[in-house]
Amino acid sequence: MEPDLHPDVVVLAPLLGTWVGSGSGEYPTIEPFEYVESITFTHVGKPFVAYTQRTRHPDTGAPMHAETGYLRVPLPGSIEIVMAQPTGLAEIYEGAVVGGDVPLVIDARSTSINATSTAKEVTITERTISVTGDQLHYTFRMAAVGQPLQHHLSATLRRE
Amino acid sequence: MEPDLHPDVVVLAPLLGTWVGSGSGEYPTIEPFEYVESITFTHVGKPFVAYTQRTRHPDTGAPMHAETGYLRVPLPGSIEIVMAQPTGLAEIYEGAVVGGDVPLVIDARSTSINATSTAKEVTITERTISVTGDQLHYTFRMAAVGQPLQHHLSATLRRE
Repeated sequence: MEPDLHPDVVVLAPLLGTWVGSGSGEYPTIEPFEYVESITFTHVGKPFVAYTQRTRHPDTGAPMHAETGYLRVPLPGSIEIVMAQPTGLAEIYEGAVVGGDVPLVIDARSTSINATSTAKEVTITERTISVTGDQLHYTFRMAAVGQPLQHHLSATLRRE
Repeated sequence: MEPDLHPDVVVLAPLLGTWVGSGSGEYPTIEPFEYVESITFTHVGKPFVAYTQRTRHPDTGAPMHAETGYLRVPLPGSIEIVMAQPTGLAEIYEGAVVGGDVPLVIDARSTSINATSTAKEVTITERTISVTGDQLHYTFRMAAVGQPLQHHLSATLRRE
């Protein structure tokens, strides 16, 4: 039996489920690229929502990126995100969440980014995630490898 | 079709799959406890292995802990682990891995632990994971909430 969503994270209810869609990325140091993406948000009745994501090449289906983590709502209107990246990065984000009677919008910025010895340098990351009905849209901004904070990724997904 | 395991992480092949078993925990600041656990290691053909874990109360089945992350082998014999915790912690581990013709042993220590504003203080974590045939055993040591580094968790799981 599916447990009830923990009261602390009820505002995140519109995220729950699996989302599929496509996105595109750009950055001064790389060629622009496109991807197809699957995102899943789940819960177990505790005060967090689990997040996992994979992207694939739109033509070959080859795996591209993956990431996984958790979202917490420590106080109404606040959000904390803890994220692990297979590129060797661990990120902590803090920010704001609005929802309830209006579309869900999460806007969060990294408060710390830690890296393994062999990971590329990423200094600031920002994520905005919005859900309106069965559509999820996100943008990802990043300061990395000596470049200033700027747009890197955006994608639009539909509830599966 | 299942992709081939990336050559960089072939040493981690014995981890792949789902493991179930039980463990116990202790720490000076809490009552000793037991748990049942499920761990899954997967790969997509890229140079990392994805890890996800859940524990439940042995009597009630209520969810206890969860964590998720990735293992990398940047150089033969070296391991990097990136881990997200729903308690608000993001951990980077570095250490050693041996395997191949001998049982797999991973021994890693945190090089950084970052936390959200509301997370409990954890300063050092150490993990040892060993796989012999269809048995996985791990121990977890931790310095947290003012206590010195010491044993916190151990568990033994069998391949499902």
